[in-house]
Amino acid sequence: MDLSSVIGILLAFGLILGSILTAEGSQISAFINYPSLMVVVGGAMAASMICFPLKSMLGAPMVMKTVFLNKIPDVRTLIEQIVSLSETARRDGLLALESRLEEIDNLFVQTGIQMAVDGTRPEVIEQILRNDMNAVAQRHKDGRGILEQMGRFAPAFGMIGTLMGLIIMLGNMSDPSSIGAGMAVALITTLYGAIVSNAVFLPAAEKLAFINKQELMNMEIVIRGIMAIQSGENPRVIEQQLFAYLPPKSRVEKEAA
Amino acid sequence: MDLSSVIGILLAFGLILGSILTAEGSQISAFINYPSLMVVVGGAMAASMICFPLKSMLGAPMVMKTVFLNKIPDVRTLIEQIVSLSETARRDGLLALESRLEEIDNLFVQTGIQMAVDGTRPEVIEQILRNDMNAVAQRHKDGRGILEQMGRFAPAFGMIGTLMGLIIMLGNMSDPSSIGAGMAVALITTLYGAIVSNAVFLPAAEKLAFINKQELMNMEIVIRGIMAIQSGENPRVIEQQLFAYLPPKSRVEKEAA
Amino acid sequence: MDLSSVIGILLAFGLILGSILTAEGSQISAFINYPSLMVVVGGAMAASMICFPLKSMLGAPMVMKTVFLNKIPDVRTLIEQIVSLSETARRDGLLALESRLEEIDNLFVQTGIQMAVDGTRPEVIEQILRNDMNAVAQRHKDGRGILEQMGRFAPAFGMIGTLMGLIIMLGNMSDPSSIGAGMAVALITTLYGAIVSNAVFLPAAEKLAFINKQELMNMEIVIRGIMAIQSGENPRVIEQQLFAYLPPKSRVEKEAA
Amino acid sequence: MDLSSVIGILLAFGLILGSILTAEGSQISAFINYPSLMVVVGGAMAASMICFPLKSMLGAPMVMKTVFLNKIPDVRTLIEQIVSLSETARRDGLLALESRLEEIDNLFVQTGIQMAVDGTRPEVIEQILRNDMNAVAQRHKDGRGILEQMGRFAPAFGMIGTLMGLIIMLGNMSDPSSIGAGMAVALITTLYGAIVSNAVFLPAAEKLAFINKQELMNMEIVIRGIMAIQSGENPRVIEQQLFAYLPPKSRVEKEAA
Amino acid sequence: MDLSSVIGILLAFGLILGSILTAEGSQISAFINYPSLMVVVGGAMAASMICFPLKSMLGAPMVMKTVFLNKIPDVRTLIEQIVSLSETARRDGLLALESRLEEIDNLFVQTGIQMAVDGTRPEVIEQILRNDMNAVAQRHKDGRGILEQMGRFAPAFGMIGTLMGLIIMLGNMSDPSSIGAGMAVALITTLYGAIVSNAVFLPAAEKLAFINKQELMNMEIVIRGIMAIQSGENPRVIEQQLFAYLPPKSRVEKEAA
Repeated sequence: MDLSSVIGILLAFGLILGSILTAEGSQISAFINYPSLMVVVGGAMAASMICFPLKSMLGAPMVMKTVFLNKIPDVRTLIEQIVSLSETARRDGLLALESRLEEIDNLFVQTGIQMAVDGTRPEVIEQILRNDMNAVAQRHKDGRGILEQMGRFAPAFGMIGTLMGLIIMLGNMSDPSSIGAGMAVALITTLYGAIVSNAVFLPAAEKLAFINKQELMNMEIVIRGIMAIQSGENPRVIEQQLFAYLPPKSRVEKEAA
Repeated sequence: MDLSSVIGILLAFGLILGSILTAEGSQISAFINYPSLMVVVGGAMAASMICFPLKSMLGAPMVMKTVFLNKIPDVRTLIEQIVSLSETARRDGLLALESRLEEIDNLFVQTGIQMAVDGTRPEVIEQILRNDMNAVAQRHKDGRGILEQMGRFAPAFGMIGTLMGLIIMLGNMSDPSSIGAGMAVALITTLYGAIVSNAVFLPAAEKLAFINKQELMNMEIVIRGIMAIQSGENPRVIEQQLFAYLPPKSRVEKEAA
Repeated sequence: MDLSSVIGILLAFGLILGSILTAEGSQISAFINYPSLMVVVGGAMAASMICFPLKSMLGAPMVMKTVFLNKIPDVRTLIEQIVSLSETARRDGLLALESRLEEIDNLFVQTGIQMAVDGTRPEVIEQILRNDMNAVAQRHKDGRGILEQMGRFAPAFGMIGTLMGLIIMLGNMSDPSSIGAGMAVALITTLYGAIVSNAVFLPAAEKLAFINKQELMNMEIVIRGIMAIQSGENPRVIEQQLFAYLPPKSRVEKEAA
Repeated sequence: MDLSSVIGILLAFGLILGSILTAEGSQISAFINYPSLMVVVGGAMAASMICFPLKSMLGAPMVMKTVFLNKIPDVRTLIEQIVSLSETARRDGLLALESRLEEIDNLFVQTGIQMAVDGTRPEVIEQILRNDMNAVAQRHKDGRGILEQMGRFAPAFGMIGTLMGLIIMLGNMSDPSSIGAGMAVALITTLYGAIVSNAVFLPAAEKLAFINKQELMNMEIVIRGIMAIQSGENPRVIEQQLFAYLPPKSRVEKEAA
Repeated sequence: MDLSSVIGILLAFGLILGSILTAEGSQISAFINYPSLMVVVGGAMAASMICFPLKSMLGAPMVMKTVFLNKIPDVRTLIEQIVSLSETARRDGLLALESRLEEIDNLFVQTGIQMAVDGTRPEVIEQILRNDMNAVAQRHKDGRGILEQMGRFAPAFGMIGTLMGLIIMLGNMSDPSSIGAGMAVALITTLYGAIVSNAVFLPAAEKLAFINKQELMNMEIVIRGIMAIQSGENPRVIEQQLFAYLPPKSRVEKEAA
């Protein structure tokens, strides 16, 4: 499990909090304003709800979980398993793979091998696996869409809140001493919008794109591997072809292993 | 019917209204200015009218209706209907589908089946169905274009209105006490532009894109299904191929059903 | 002739003028500043002249005319004409089309039919017609490029003018009462830039893109139609294929007709 | 030689200078600040040097020369030359072209004809000519990249300079009368950045893109022409195919000629 | 080794430093603020850590090293080596290349030649080499992604820091004389964000893209060369084809050599 995103978000908020606490003449209470938080987060959520169906919106917490707790199977392990399966198929025939189905914990590999064992036609296997791959890509794209819209609308509603605050302040200028305070409150909404967008949603959307790319590469490797297994390809050639997806450095490590 | 967009827009305006009503020293009347509304909404509409022919502009309310009251046929039901039709065709021949034409309420499926029954050549059927699909995509794209232009020109005219307000205010600075009020009025136009754009038009354009994607996927499934029915494909294989368009989770649900 | 663009531009300037005239304490003279107009429009034109050859720049008024007075041939009429031509060709042979050449007022259709009558090879006909189509697309793209650059540089020169105004004003602050007036004059340039860009050039560029899309679709229909006529395709099939380019609703209208 | 870019840049700077000279209370000296110029132009150059290898940076003046003094061969003349060459080849054989090599001043045409005369295989000729074409496209793209980065970094360093000026000014507020002057100086850097970017680099980048497009079309015509000459195509058909690259209007001019 | 990036970054910081030191009334100490540096650089790093896995983030210093100390093999030398290898293969057979493997220092060429010597099937060689090429492209893209995110989040956190500074300042307006100083401190964060982004990360990301393009072209040349060697192509034709990747000018230099 990669903790980079968790560390990153803690670090970002820690830095912001730390610089408020250590700044001279600064009070943490001056930075807390619930109505501003409502306008920014609530407004961004409302705008996103207009963009997407309820079902996608309800899946958003799941998307955040994927971003922070993603567990992508290791490519090397995946390739080694496929090569091992291809050896069995080469030695004992495709049907022999049935006995090894249980040990496969990757659902995508399992589906592919099952179809190969069932004697499904190669082009049907490939189409079904590619459709699965596209469905995963689509799901990630939808999830990323929500995060990006949140990251786009949060600063917009931050600006809307600040404009409202300024209009209220400008209508009450009889007491000049209150101008500073009114302006400070107005600016908090812009600050919230900038933080929520830049320290949460925009980076999370980027991470999801990264995870998606990784996962699609894994699925591509699986598809190539399963097609090769079914066509009775030599396990050494399969290994060579699949390891070519890894950066040369990783391949050297493998050969050293 | 998905109410997400309706809830979202109500929530967005509710939040804005609520935060005005609860803010200290704020009066709702300070936020109402009809000339500003005219400049922002009228200006954005005028600019959009330059962009598109009158016919497309008049279709804009229809587009908004699609965004808020969309009823996309359920993918699962669609696939099940196609599989059921393929069973009839397999068992009793393509002509037997004629008797089932009436029960199909999806016009696109109906057109396809009708052509299959009429013995139209497969490539002609596919071309006509794909042209229909492109026409739908084009219509959505035009509609989305209007929403996007409105969302783009609304803040621009908001800024134009604010600049006009500032110029008027700066020309009447003899009475310093009125500066605040003049500035407040000037800012309202920018506020309106930001709200209209971020709480209505930009999210609505995103929703239309989402609906479009969904509808095109449905049409793609129908085309694949009808081509498979005509070529006399095995209903089980058709089912397997079409369900592969759904995310794996939905497929499991189906098998459980 | 579609008047949408003409109405739109009148509406946009009407709104701006109206809101200036009705605003309290506002004078129309405060919004007229010829040097500012020079900097914005002249600057945007100068920058565009750097971007494009003189010949393209001189064609810009022609492009504006296309935007405001476009006359795109009706798709339905076009298709009906092609179908009618295909009937003649089917009945009396390709050469019989020669007698009908005169009644065709669309130059593109005429060129295609002429080549078919002359017995030009199908692939040569298609290549020449596609080249024509690309030339039209290219000409529109060039025209659109000029409008887009004008729309991009106008606000930039608006900002340049405002910065110059501010620097002059800040250098003459001995008389505080003149600050407001100086600032107002400085802001006019930004206002001009925003209006010129958002109420003229950017929407006009969008309209040109729309017109281009329409015209290319018409040309695509003509190419498909002429290729089908030459290959001796059944007029009913040609009709079916070409009408598939229209949205289903229009097709129903046709069948009702 | 097209002087549009030269006129454009003179016009842009003339307008800016003119509006400074004619503005009331304005002094040209208030707009001259060498350190600001250093920060903007020097900073943009430094940032561009990070982006590109030294060799490309040293080629930048050459790129500017291309923008302002471009001499693209006329398409019509080019096509006429190719058609004339094809007539020779058709009448006297490919080898007869050798005697005409000297009269060809376009290096690209010469290379192609030379290879045709040498009996190089068609696919090798095409590959080599396309590689040349790609090399030209790449060189233009690199040159354009530098202009675009200059146009992007100039306003950024303008803002950096203004921020530095503001920080200095804000640290010396004991004498309020100097605030205006300090602010004016700070703004000059932003002004320089905006002018340098919008009146020089961004339009120059656009022009280079335009020139590139033109030159690539010419090369495409040459490639098509040479391949047709080598395959012994009829000169009339070659003429018809190549003139199809021109807009219909130009073709009519040709026929009238 | 190309020092352009090193010179560029020194020049950028030198200019900024120089203009601070030479400005009247300016003190270098007024521009140093460690908490601001923490918010900008730390914040941008934290946001980037959310975007990418830890492993990629740890590779970032390596990416910076590539940007500033890149050593791309010279294209000309590369082509000459491939041509020389093709001569050996043509004269003495593919196996004779084994004895020359040691003299090849480019790992990518070596891998390809080794596979050719081993008699690996051409399509497998090509696939493996292309996979290697894609892996390099991917690694560069990831590295570039980090630089771009740093360049995007640095100004965002600069703005966040300035907003925090303004809110603190506005809450302490009892002493008007301190407003200037507070504002100056607040602006420093924006200044840092602009400098870090425009003088380091954004140009470095561009440079990486440039290096990537160069390296991929080299790899493309190697792949074409090795495929041609294996198919026993004539060394003169290989030379002609590979040199076509160079701009014509470089080719002339070569012929002159």
